[in-house]
Amino acid sequence: MVPVMLGLKSETSARWLAQVDRDLDEVLIDHAHCEKKAAGTALNLIFAYVEDDQLCREMEQIVAEELEHFRLVRELLERRKIPFRRLRPSSYGRKLNDLVRKIEPGRAVDRLLVAGLIEARSCQRFAALRDHVPDPELAKFYGDLFAAEARHHATYVRLAKRYATETEVEQRLEWLAEREAEILSQGDPVARMHS
Amino acid sequence: MVPVMLGLKSETSARWLAQVDRDLDEVLIDHAHCEKKAAGTALNLIFAYVEDDQLCREMEQIVAEELEHFRLVRELLERRKIPFRRLRPSSYGRKLNDLVRKIEPGRAVDRLLVAGLIEARSCQRFAALRDHVPDPELAKFYGDLFAAEARHHATYVRLAKRYATETEVEQRLEWLAEREAEILSQGDPVARMHS
Repeated sequence: MVPVMLGLKSETSARWLAQVDRDLDEVLIDHAHCEKKAAGTALNLIFAYVEDDQLCREMEQIVAEELEHFRLVRELLERRKIPFRRLRPSSYGRKLNDLVRKIEPGRAVDRLLVAGLIEARSCQRFAALRDHVPDPELAKFYGDLFAAEARHHATYVRLAKRYATETEVEQRLEWLAEREAEILSQGDPVARMHS
Repeated sequence: MVPVMLGLKSETSARWLAQVDRDLDEVLIDHAHCEKKAAGTALNLIFAYVEDDQLCREMEQIVAEELEHFRLVRELLERRKIPFRRLRPSSYGRKLNDLVRKIEPGRAVDRLLVAGLIEARSCQRFAALRDHVPDPELAKFYGDLFAAEARHHATYVRLAKRYATETEVEQRLEWLAEREAEILSQGDPVARMHS
């Protein structure tokens, strides 16, 4: 079992690893969609906070990296002859985004922290895949992607501190991380990266 | 006067050059927003046509390039001590997007061709700026960006041909290019890259 990391409030469950064993192809396809959505999230943050030059710089970097990962996962699918297709997303992202406050600057803090939590959870799941899947190509693939997600998590939390005090951000992150673990503990019938 | 290029149906008007002379700073700020919007357009096309691997590959490239240009324009503004800020956009983009058909595959063709026409017009305006502004740094800046826009125009038109026959695309491009020139001929009271 991968230890709790990056402020997450739960470990990767045996339930999820069983979903991976049952529906690995679907988890891989979902992973491609996740990278695309992560690029969208970072670009949306540029649109929302375009006056914040530092945020824009860091998001530009993240958009480029997520699109590169999207490409890497698409190529992995192609090598494994898994046809890429649309998937119904898990409810995870929607439930997390429902927690984002409507009023600024709390909204900015929450958008950044939710993005950071998703990166943290991806990072944990990549580590779990690396350690769990018997396929050496896949294990290496997730081992390689692991570090980027941890870095993105740190970037989002750091940027949130431009919109609230350090204490406020830490308390809010703690609260959101608890909700994130609750959401994930509800499970999802579909096998996804965040089910 | 810069000649008509890339299938456009009108030249850069003296009216626009007068707007540039009056409100150059505002045109430069708008240019930064245009690059950001161009990245958004390309990423939206990935979301809309995610099964089309070739389209995704080319859009990934364009997103990265547009964000790099967004950065270059932000740095130009900083060097010139022009504070970056939000601007009310010109009506050009909205009017062009109103022409996009609602039903696929015509919708894909139109989204790609409208994106291609905007790139063509940007290309023409960059050339006009290069030849018009007395400032050598600016002239070089727009001379350098010019080629990318022409390349993006060609990419969009080529991709449209994956969603309709060559003849259909050419006829539709002709029709849209006429509308584009009409929209631009109506002018816009605000000084923008596409006013």
